[in-house]
Amino acid sequence: MYELGVVYRNIERTDSAVADGLARYGSATVHEAMGRVGLLKPYMRPIYAGAQVSGTAVTVLLHPGDNWMMHVVAEQIRPGDIVVAAISAECTDGYFGDLLATSFMARGARALVIDAGVRDVKTLTEMGFPVWSKCISSKGTIKATLGSVNTPVVCAGMLVIPGDVIVADDDGVVCVPRAMAAKALEDAAAREANEGNKREKLASGVLGLDMYNMRPALEKAGLRYID
Amino acid sequence: MYELGVVYRNIERTDSAVADGLARYGSATVHEAMGRVGLLKPYMRPIYAGAQVSGTAVTVLLHPGDNWMMHVVAEQIRPGDIVVAAISAECTDGYFGDLLATSFMARGARALVIDAGVRDVKTLTEMGFPVWSKCISSKGTIKATLGSVNTPVVCAGMLVIPGDVIVADDDGVVCVPRAMAAKALEDAAAREANEGNKREKLASGVLGLDMYNMRPALEKAGLRYID
Amino acid sequence: MYELGVVYRNIERTDSAVADGLARYGSATVHEAMGRVGLLKPYMRPIYAGAQVSGTAVTVLLHPGDNWMMHVVAEQIRPGDIVVAAISAECTDGYFGDLLATSFMARGARALVIDAGVRDVKTLTEMGFPVWSKCISSKGTIKATLGSVNTPVVCAGMLVIPGDVIVADDDGVVCVPRAMAAKALEDAAAREANEGNKREKLASGVLGLDMYNMRPALEKAGLRYID
Amino acid sequence: MYELGVVYRNIERTDSAVADGLARYGSATVHEAMGRVGLLKPYMRPIYAGAQVSGTAVTVLLHPGDNWMMHVVAEQIRPGDIVVAAISAECTDGYFGDLLATSFMARGARALVIDAGVRDVKTLTEMGFPVWSKCISSKGTIKATLGSVNTPVVCAGMLVIPGDVIVADDDGVVCVPRAMAAKALEDAAAREANEGNKREKLASGVLGLDMYNMRPALEKAGLRYID
Amino acid sequence: MYELGVVYRNIERTDSAVADGLARYGSATVHEAMGRVGLLKPYMRPIYAGAQVSGTAVTVLLHPGDNWMMHVVAEQIRPGDIVVAAISAECTDGYFGDLLATSFMARGARALVIDAGVRDVKTLTEMGFPVWSKCISSKGTIKATLGSVNTPVVCAGMLVIPGDVIVADDDGVVCVPRAMAAKALEDAAAREANEGNKREKLASGVLGLDMYNMRPALEKAGLRYID
Amino acid sequence: MYELGVVYRNIERTDSAVADGLARYGSATVHEAMGRVGLLKPYMRPIYAGAQVSGTAVTVLLHPGDNWMMHVVAEQIRPGDIVVAAISAECTDGYFGDLLATSFMARGARALVIDAGVRDVKTLTEMGFPVWSKCISSKGTIKATLGSVNTPVVCAGMLVIPGDVIVADDDGVVCVPRAMAAKALEDAAAREANEGNKREKLASGVLGLDMYNMRPALEKAGLRYID
Repeated sequence: MYELGVVYRNIERTDSAVADGLARYGSATVHEAMGRVGLLKPYMRPIYAGAQVSGTAVTVLLHPGDNWMMHVVAEQIRPGDIVVAAISAECTDGYFGDLLATSFMARGARALVIDAGVRDVKTLTEMGFPVWSKCISSKGTIKATLGSVNTPVVCAGMLVIPGDVIVADDDGVVCVPRAMAAKALEDAAAREANEGNKREKLASGVLGLDMYNMRPALEKAGLRYID
Repeated sequence: MYELGVVYRNIERTDSAVADGLARYGSATVHEAMGRVGLLKPYMRPIYAGAQVSGTAVTVLLHPGDNWMMHVVAEQIRPGDIVVAAISAECTDGYFGDLLATSFMARGARALVIDAGVRDVKTLTEMGFPVWSKCISSKGTIKATLGSVNTPVVCAGMLVIPGDVIVADDDGVVCVPRAMAAKALEDAAAREANEGNKREKLASGVLGLDMYNMRPALEKAGLRYID
Repeated sequence: MYELGVVYRNIERTDSAVADGLARYGSATVHEAMGRVGLLKPYMRPIYAGAQVSGTAVTVLLHPGDNWMMHVVAEQIRPGDIVVAAISAECTDGYFGDLLATSFMARGARALVIDAGVRDVKTLTEMGFPVWSKCISSKGTIKATLGSVNTPVVCAGMLVIPGDVIVADDDGVVCVPRAMAAKALEDAAAREANEGNKREKLASGVLGLDMYNMRPALEKAGLRYID
Repeated sequence: MYELGVVYRNIERTDSAVADGLARYGSATVHEAMGRVGLLKPYMRPIYAGAQVSGTAVTVLLHPGDNWMMHVVAEQIRPGDIVVAAISAECTDGYFGDLLATSFMARGARALVIDAGVRDVKTLTEMGFPVWSKCISSKGTIKATLGSVNTPVVCAGMLVIPGDVIVADDDGVVCVPRAMAAKALEDAAAREANEGNKREKLASGVLGLDMYNMRPALEKAGLRYID
Repeated sequence: MYELGVVYRNIERTDSAVADGLARYGSATVHEAMGRVGLLKPYMRPIYAGAQVSGTAVTVLLHPGDNWMMHVVAEQIRPGDIVVAAISAECTDGYFGDLLATSFMARGARALVIDAGVRDVKTLTEMGFPVWSKCISSKGTIKATLGSVNTPVVCAGMLVIPGDVIVADDDGVVCVPRAMAAKALEDAAAREANEGNKREKLASGVLGLDMYNMRPALEKAGLRYID
Repeated sequence: MYELGVVYRNIERTDSAVADGLARYGSATVHEAMGRVGLLKPYMRPIYAGAQVSGTAVTVLLHPGDNWMMHVVAEQIRPGDIVVAAISAECTDGYFGDLLATSFMARGARALVIDAGVRDVKTLTEMGFPVWSKCISSKGTIKATLGSVNTPVVCAGMLVIPGDVIVADDDGVVCVPRAMAAKALEDAAAREANEGNKREKLASGVLGLDMYNMRPALEKAGLRYID
């Protein structure tokens, strides 16, 4: 744990059918399906609205102001991966721009999730390469110290193991541990199926109070209506 | 004040002609017209740009991580209302998503103002249901503890009494107390009428220094020009 | 320094060919070209996406909740200028709206950079007048105390001397000191020329590891690959 | 509500025996006794450790950077009062120092609670005049605009009505509405009486699990022990 | 990982001689000895100055506003342990006060590290039970939902495995993984031994520039002295 | 400006009688005497309470995570100096500990003001070497990149020119430009002389309303008293 100076080339990725399948349900439904765990802190925001992705995590641990390992992690990307970048201390520098994005896309990466800053966001938006980050900053970085690739990292408060699934959209970023991913996909699908029906009812004016039969429990808890 | 476990069914809403009329002037002009009071803290941001609404406040007080009362408040919504949600302690959870929005819209709500998080923002944007919130988060909530509906609440630092008018747009959210609303509408209209004329003059190159006759006061205050 | 109550009418602006030329390279490239200095803090954000400008700084120092000097600085604007507004203490008020923007545009200003709040952002967006600010707020200001115009100011943590060049885009705001501007333009152009070529290589799948010949240095630093 | 330019001279203060009696229980016990409402946001911190007070609220609403009304509120202080200062927009200025504290003490004030900054904290500490504030700042203020005295205010997110009880200590600041104060005192005393007994048991090694008989509920909720 | 509803009774604690031995070197030296990893975010602050401890981590995962599991973890404490409490979402509530501290002390706990709030800090200070926390808050919690005990947790951005060593003092909190602890102790001792000598030299006026022989490297890097 | 890689050996220090004389008035009085300018942002806090110093600024510009230049600046310290450390981007690392403090004290430094983190605060407190910093952090730094010494820097939002006077105490940190220092000393002394008299009056129960003759102005501004 927290080894520095190592690159793990072989990681156990979550089965791609499962990893790919989670995208359509989005971060909120998947988070709910997992029992409300796995969410990265809500300061993680997309650089543009509307992207919705899932993929397998390859991880990189960087040092403040130093993005050398971004080039090392690029080589470990396989199609369908999402790069998850953690920093060993708080930093707002722009670690990633259009050149690295070009390289990541050529390797098949679907997105970057980084607990620091990013830059060239206008170009990244035009390229359609989505990034979820803590901030946006023009400030570049040096290439001087070793971090690590594909070790477990803590990104925006959440532990990410290489091969876990990342689900990200306008609502935020969720990490689904590999062992829970197939179950999460199933549960998310079940939730979604269930929701279409509810939406119709609610749209017709039925209240959640009645649809979920909440009135008895509210009464028992002591809710009083005052005219 | 701060009663828990109660729902007030009858509130005195601001006259709808007044409440509806304030939307067109926007939060900045209305705030100005009221003598610069009533603004919720500027961390309250719209989930998408361009919405501009006004309406009468129905309020809900919730507990951290618990959105049970959202279903209770839904029943109290009348067409033209805006739901104002306060939390009894700081919380970033996503209390509100597309299902509740469907229900709120079916009841005639125009918007939600919430001092916490919201989710499903992509769908909410497509539905055209505007929300002003402290943050965005996938994290869902439980349904376990009683709060209250239509009691006075403090939302983002501002006291909101049920029936007050809420004015919200890209600049923020303003609460207009019921007793001040008719006067605020009048004053906002007067300010607006006055502004068209000013805008033309300024566009033609006339300086505010001259248009507002500021030079004598600046000179008196001691302003020195140095060449 | 920090004189109050003065307006410097004559400032040495950076040569306009240089000041204008920097816009196309954007804040990240210019920041890089300057050796990674000059960036305003990354909390400075554009009110709408996509604007990319450069221009010569005219500066204004204001007090919390007081925008009187905004009218004074308007008179000192020349075509091609960008107004840089600093506040003598932290403040989130909305110092600037569509009327002042109309006046600034009539004088030839290209943008406003302000370490406080701005309002009327919907109208400003329609007018195409870009602002980089710390926040957005409906809250207006009074006109009561003297600040200064065209003295050196510290805006969002960066020293700005009147006549310096400001480069701003979606990535943030950079200040280029007048004495460094010609060199920065040259270096930025050189960097850009160099990047097109790199982008192509990376898009074809060549890794940065090889393109920049990083492998020997990484090995020397002790990087280990584990299968 | 939010009247400006008024001073209410006659307010209904909570009975002094009740107001004074709450101090000994401290903010945590009182907050608990009230059903966990009434707490000002936890960013409110004492300028020195160890003070523990209660008293009746006299309120003052100030504008950013302007402490004129501090002198107006001083006249309304009676022995046993605590001044609660709200600002009409976020501000970190130092509104209060040793001179005002001398005046407040001479009038019988027990403390100041202010949603902004304070200064002269070394002298205030020596004088033994406790202040709970958002921050500490050398920055002084002007005396130019009218606020109000003894109107309801929102301070650090909590509504405070003149005459309510304020309880403040190292844990924070709680507002007890006048109508709830006698009951809160009773409940706090009951809680405290109950705690001494518990403390002894816990100190002897008895677990809360057993003392509160939590094991059946935990088991029912599904808690599993793994060896 | 992130199992809910489980309590691991048997964890592999770091050898107590090692765990205990780290206290005397303090968090800064230990962090340095580990190669500058393992630090919890610097917002973690002691509730009183001067405490310096180390011990083996027992972990607890709690939900926002719910401290039920605090009673569950109490039973798993052994003499020499430090409780590390993580919350499943951001929360500032006061999860821990003097009653729980009495229980923890009776079980032999040396400290609490919690990524949320704590209360009764005056009493805790008198009892000499040190806590490192994100904030201080009077706000109490409910006892309603299951978390877990002795699973890996992320606390203030750092992964903590039950049995790891925690080192905490006025400078912050460091987590030393069990596998690295013996080596970290050795390296910390070596660093410390080395420092006494340096301190004397520096006190006599010798410069670090000369003591560390930095001048050639600075010159090579291009440092210029200007008279 | 913002030269990197240079050390200015000769700076014009403010006259020592003036620089030394400002300490006794403290940051609030000096800030007031200067017309309310010069204050570093209020997040700058002393590591222990009670220190009150003034001295001449020697400046150092450092990079994130790199304290190499701290050793370079040590050589430029003369008795009576205060080191002012700025960082080229936001950083919370602990740049300074007891060894550097030993060296700084041996050179005659009175304090450090740093817009980043510091560590070994327990030992620094025992040594009586005061530091004003943005945060406290165990995290150490590397020694790899050149910054500069005795160039103008922006520290916590304020421009500091080498040789300016720094005044720091529990209320914060103020920078007095060299050219204004003698005048500021005079004005501070005048303010202080004036205050003793006022304090006595206020202690005797005289109101500021009467002592400053504020009643006519308040009446003119429209203040109404309501019984």
